[in-house]
Amino acid sequence: MSFPKPERILLPNGLLVYLFEDHELPLLDAAIDFKAGSIFDPPDKAGLADLTAIMMRAGGTGESTPDETDQALEFMAAQVTIFAGDDMLGGSVSAVKDKFPEALRIFASMLRAPRFDPSRLEVERARVQEEIRRRWDDPGEIADLNFPRLVYGAASPWARLSSAESVGRIRRDDLAEFHRRYIHPNNAVMGIAGDFDGKAMKKLLEETFRGWTQAKVTPPPIPKVKDDFQAGVYVVARPFSQSHVEIGHLGAGRFDPDKFAIKILNFILGEGGFTSRLVKEVRSTRGLAYSVRGGVGLGTDRGLFEISCSTKTASTVEAIDLIRRILRQMREEGPTEQEVKEAKEASINSFVFSVDGTVNFMGSFLYYDFYNYPPDFLRTYRDNLARVTREQVLQAARKRLDPDRMVILVVGNATSFDRPLQSLGLGEPRPLTLDQEPAALPAAR
Amino acid sequence: MSFPKPERILLPNGLLVYLFEDHELPLLDAAIDFKAGSIFDPPDKAGLADLTAIMMRAGGTGESTPDETDQALEFMAAQVTIFAGDDMLGGSVSAVKDKFPEALRIFASMLRAPRFDPSRLEVERARVQEEIRRRWDDPGEIADLNFPRLVYGAASPWARLSSAESVGRIRRDDLAEFHRRYIHPNNAVMGIAGDFDGKAMKKLLEETFRGWTQAKVTPPPIPKVKDDFQAGVYVVARPFSQSHVEIGHLGAGRFDPDKFAIKILNFILGEGGFTSRLVKEVRSTRGLAYSVRGGVGLGTDRGLFEISCSTKTASTVEAIDLIRRILRQMREEGPTEQEVKEAKEASINSFVFSVDGTVNFMGSFLYYDFYNYPPDFLRTYRDNLARVTREQVLQAARKRLDPDRMVILVVGNATSFDRPLQSLGLGEPRPLTLDQEPAALPAAR
Repeated sequence: MSFPKPERILLPNGLLVYLFEDHELPLLDAAIDFKAGSIFDPPDKAGLADLTAIMMRAGGTGESTPDETDQALEFMAAQVTIFAGDDMLGGSVSAVKDKFPEALRIFASMLRAPRFDPSRLEVERARVQEEIRRRWDDPGEIADLNFPRLVYGAASPWARLSSAESVGRIRRDDLAEFHRRYIHPNNAVMGIAGDFDGKAMKKLLEETFRGWTQAKVTPPPIPKVKDDFQAGVYVVARPFSQSHVEIGHLGAGRFDPDKFAIKILNFILGEGGFTSRLVKEVRSTRGLAYSVRGGVGLGTDRGLFEISCSTKTASTVEAIDLIRRILRQMREEGPTEQEVKEAKEASINSFVFSVDGTVNFMGSFLYYDFYNYPPDFLRTYRDNLARVTREQVLQAARKRLDPDRMVILVVGNATSFDRPLQSLGLGEPRPLTLDQEPAALPAAR
Repeated sequence: MSFPKPERILLPNGLLVYLFEDHELPLLDAAIDFKAGSIFDPPDKAGLADLTAIMMRAGGTGESTPDETDQALEFMAAQVTIFAGDDMLGGSVSAVKDKFPEALRIFASMLRAPRFDPSRLEVERARVQEEIRRRWDDPGEIADLNFPRLVYGAASPWARLSSAESVGRIRRDDLAEFHRRYIHPNNAVMGIAGDFDGKAMKKLLEETFRGWTQAKVTPPPIPKVKDDFQAGVYVVARPFSQSHVEIGHLGAGRFDPDKFAIKILNFILGEGGFTSRLVKEVRSTRGLAYSVRGGVGLGTDRGLFEISCSTKTASTVEAIDLIRRILRQMREEGPTEQEVKEAKEASINSFVFSVDGTVNFMGSFLYYDFYNYPPDFLRTYRDNLARVTREQVLQAARKRLDPDRMVILVVGNATSFDRPLQSLGLGEPRPLTLDQEPAALPAAR
């Protein structure tokens, strides 16, 4: 297959833009990613990046109230999103060709001059707090949100949770300050895909972003992830009708030299869908689990090695035991030649779906550019997978899987498990206290 | 914009296939829809269509065990789905160009000669039963599943719920019989989109489907929907941390002469996102609701008019009251000229997203062909919207909204509502008993 070749332009204010011309449909899509996110939240105001992104989208612009902004976009059927992740604050706008210049202008105003309308702030804040209050209703969400805290430490910027209180402390000035620190043209990469003429687009971009000036961006120092978690069994005992289990430890970095071997390992272990060892053994053959998947994550600092499993209450401990056996076996014997061959073939065949269509390709392209991957990363991806050997996968498993030092977090109806958790031979399970239990909160406004 | 023009072919066995040639990417997608679904389930075996579709996908084929089938597809990175709705049983297969013939062959075997492997059946049955046991864990799902029962009647084929017992009663022979009754080439419409040559594709289709023969299909009679529901307030009192409310009554049919006016009405009322009256009033301005949306549904017989709202416990009754006021006002005064103008513009502008890309267009095309819409339905869609007048929307509102005779289903922590439900002036709320409470079930296997 051939890859779209974007045109790269650098606006005078330092904004880097890639243009992906494609005239198939009368549509345009733009996306932008800023180096900002929840890792920069002040600890007592956890949730700031998230609320800033929500309010950039929903809080109006210099020229328009929130309602006027929403209406203008909706009548054009333009779709705009702005969201904050842990180390990326991203946005996108999508519109039919003849409405795109106006939609882009509104999107640019949200980025450059958000109004942060005070009464909309209270509505959005209340909604975020309500979501926080609901998050302990679901065993999967309890496990998902607490596992990183156990591995990274609860105070780590990579695991910190917002609370109704921390969100309650955020003032409009905090949003403005977060925006002032990070949302600058020289701190972002942008892409535009669709039905446009390159020369006209450059003119439109210059006009739209004229007057948006560079600024020095000084993020706070983020401490390195420490490998000092307490292995063992943690339990959240609740009368849910099924159990959720997370098992693992620290993962690897995005530029780990073994990253292609790790991808093949993950496919064989638990990311390969029906044919992964975990699904075949735990789910299909024994019918123990409702779902089971996971692998070694590659993060900006260190990702998580994390196996997630939801099981019937009455097979919880059996499922944990089986997952541990599968991990030990993978570490000791590694995969078979056949597994490696098939995993490589499947990964290479499925690659095309991740870059399917110009907008989709642009998304992948911007992601790798944002995180400073080599420029030919996408082009050489399949060749790099093809070169992985069984021996490399075995070495990656030995280096990255440590079944004797894992966090095992179990959420479920502990009194009805098939066996006591003590029978795992990993000592007394430690009861985990959830932050912000609904009962401990003041009533909703 | 120009619409893809599919080539229409009719195989000797009665299978109608539309070919959408598109060489942009080295990918192919096929989709097929059969006239079958849960409305044909025997009442004591509710869940049969669903389990049949699951087992056609997961239960192996004449030539291969379930594991062999899954592995073969996964190594090709081919994606296959089969699902049952109420009156449509559909499937799809997606693969890179050079794997497509083999992926299509496996997909065809699933359709023609599913193995319904007995031990896989027990695994899938247990999983379905576990999902059934969990469905009363969530207030939104309780409301979603019970509202249609209140409007259509619990015994209606359009509202019937499966239970752990009804699924437990299904034998392998029942799957085979359901398959034998409905899964025939002359009872389906198929589409193929992507990178192929028309002549070669016809040859491939003839080879792949050779020997799959026509058969007479005699579905059971489905009784007409009756408009005899009991209006009033129904309540499921549970200590959830937020409330969920469904409000409405019967909707319209898919070929209703007012259908374009109804679409504009829905946009203005509660499907238009940020600018709908419900969102503006209930959510944005008063901050009462976490989410609120809905409109008059167009169904094969009669759809549902259904407004869904999730709110804080302490504003539940206020939100219900406000929704009723908004409905009454719409029925009495109708929309403004400006609202109609803007709703038409927005609907016309957003249409392109629903047919964006060849695979997406094929999906819409097959849907309308399956339900026997006029062949030019997609092509004339925007013109038909453009012709709608304010007066037509007002008449549609008067004909289709009846705020004085509605089912109001409330799920939530009734003791903490802002006011008693009696204060709505609609009589005593009727407590609703949920089928299949987990406590009443035998323990999971």
